[in-house]
Amino acid sequence: MQSLGCDVAALNTVQFSNHTGYGQWTGSRVSAQEITDLFQGLKQSYLDDFDMMLSGYVPGAEALEAVGRIAQELKAKAKKKPGSFFWVLDPVMGDNGNLYVAQDVVPVYKSLVSHADLILPNQFEAELLSEARIVDMASLGRAIQVMHERYGIPHIIITSVSLGDSDPASLPPSALCVVGSTMTSARRARAFKIVFPAIDCYFSGTGDMFAALTVVRMREAVWNTPGGELVGTEAWRSADAVDALELPLAKAAEKVLASMHEVLTKTCQAMEEGLRRRRGEGVNGDDKTARLLKSKAAELRLVRHVDSLRNPKVEFRAVKV
Amino acid sequence: MQSLGCDVAALNTVQFSNHTGYGQWTGSRVSAQEITDLFQGLKQSYLDDFDMMLSGYVPGAEALEAVGRIAQELKAKAKKKPGSFFWVLDPVMGDNGNLYVAQDVVPVYKSLVSHADLILPNQFEAELLSEARIVDMASLGRAIQVMHERYGIPHIIITSVSLGDSDPASLPPSALCVVGSTMTSARRARAFKIVFPAIDCYFSGTGDMFAALTVVRMREAVWNTPGGELVGTEAWRSADAVDALELPLAKAAEKVLASMHEVLTKTCQAMEEGLRRRRGEGVNGDDKTARLLKSKAAELRLVRHVDSLRNPKVEFRAVKV
Repeated sequence: MQSLGCDVAALNTVQFSNHTGYGQWTGSRVSAQEITDLFQGLKQSYLDDFDMMLSGYVPGAEALEAVGRIAQELKAKAKKKPGSFFWVLDPVMGDNGNLYVAQDVVPVYKSLVSHADLILPNQFEAELLSEARIVDMASLGRAIQVMHERYGIPHIIITSVSLGDSDPASLPPSALCVVGSTMTSARRARAFKIVFPAIDCYFSGTGDMFAALTVVRMREAVWNTPGGELVGTEAWRSADAVDALELPLAKAAEKVLASMHEVLTKTCQAMEEGLRRRRGEGVNGDDKTARLLKSKAAELRLVRHVDSLRNPKVEFRAVKV
Repeated sequence: MQSLGCDVAALNTVQFSNHTGYGQWTGSRVSAQEITDLFQGLKQSYLDDFDMMLSGYVPGAEALEAVGRIAQELKAKAKKKPGSFFWVLDPVMGDNGNLYVAQDVVPVYKSLVSHADLILPNQFEAELLSEARIVDMASLGRAIQVMHERYGIPHIIITSVSLGDSDPASLPPSALCVVGSTMTSARRARAFKIVFPAIDCYFSGTGDMFAALTVVRMREAVWNTPGGELVGTEAWRSADAVDALELPLAKAAEKVLASMHEVLTKTCQAMEEGLRRRRGEGVNGDDKTARLLKSKAAELRLVRHVDSLRNPKVEFRAVKV
């Protein structure tokens, strides 16, 4: 976000030695009380003038409630100036059928989604929020419709969709897609998808990268609407006449995926080299060591590929669902 | 550091709502035990392969000891490969005669400086470490000599020097300077100074900015020595024949100050505008409010001036002391 020009205030919800993909870590979570205290500290010094908020991984229900109260307070404060505050909520709960937060976090997300402007669930999280199984494009479309209707959530991107063999026509093998939608005034979905090639590497942090880039690119796309017409509107929701492929959400997602694809491709290329170098340094041995070194080698190479964040070449375009 | 290409692992020693220049804040310090635990976490997953370490504000003696143990451990590990680890220690204790850490932090810094490669005290901190008053260029030179001799510290930059009226010849009014030195093999000082215009604004975080830029620019200057001859040498200490003005430390400091001057100038220009805007939003009133808004307006504008960090125009050159 900083590399794209945002002044960012980070409120850490954990301080861990490393991401949990390593399978082991030290450090601690920040308590709900401390999260609340930190926001009070910002407020009392007039440091709460945020244009956008991105919330991500929050491992406990109480801490998540504290984060939700902050977002709702900022939203209430912005009520008189439509479009002046926008909450991107990444409902981090799990992946591929596995929860990696406490069970009681799920109902908290369900209660918060109706206050957010844009949510970024993966396929599993979309199932949890819509309470519907997603097995093909049709059921995925229904899940999106359910979320728009039930939560009134204006913008949705489902960030990783893999539909298996049950819908072979929609995706070639070794392809992934994201599916996004901005609802109409009648809460009807306007869905698009973007298909892109899968990279055969296991990365961590791609969800956070997607979310951070989406914050910046969504704002940019809204500012780029003709005459900036959307800037002062509630939740930056396009008029009903706007086609799915003309949504700022679709434009944003195209740029986000372009950056992602470039950084992931370069990370994957460098990965083998990194593994070789560490082996050359004599760190070698058992399965656990090999697994840890692989996690390290797969760390997203963001800093050295800032240009891919700033000026990605858009190759994968949104198409209608 | 990231904008200049470094992959950075940050170990937060505090999580505060804002810097302490506001006079009020919330949040908490990280305990010595947690600092130690976090480093253990990095080690157990082979994530401790650092080329450099920068240590800054650590408010308590025990936490500082924990930070010092990490640096010493990394240094010991690098012993077989001279030049492969470099510790920049910013001995943050106070400014202008006032301590802003606990009293018992001072002796801990004195015990740690002998393990560091480069220290960045301001004038007051240099007095504390050398146990000598600094009133003019001569006494400042003696303080540097004392620190080289007593601690064997290879590189020193005194980051803010203001000598008052007692040494009128050395600095014009409204000028500041930094004084740096890399010791010879006989622990003799090789000192240079860089004079630059003062900007009439009260900023916070300039010390941290100076330190972060110095980490990057010192490494770059060492890599740029003819044939990269210094890269594999203990503490990157130049041969005795190298003149003060040819030191990598001097080259680094020139670039650091160039970036600082550009960012501070632009921050100061934007400051008045920021204050006006906030007043226009109706935040106004008592002295406390005005002071808080001024602190906010004086926040260093780093993100929007990345180019000043990356490609500063060097105008102020090192001269011999």
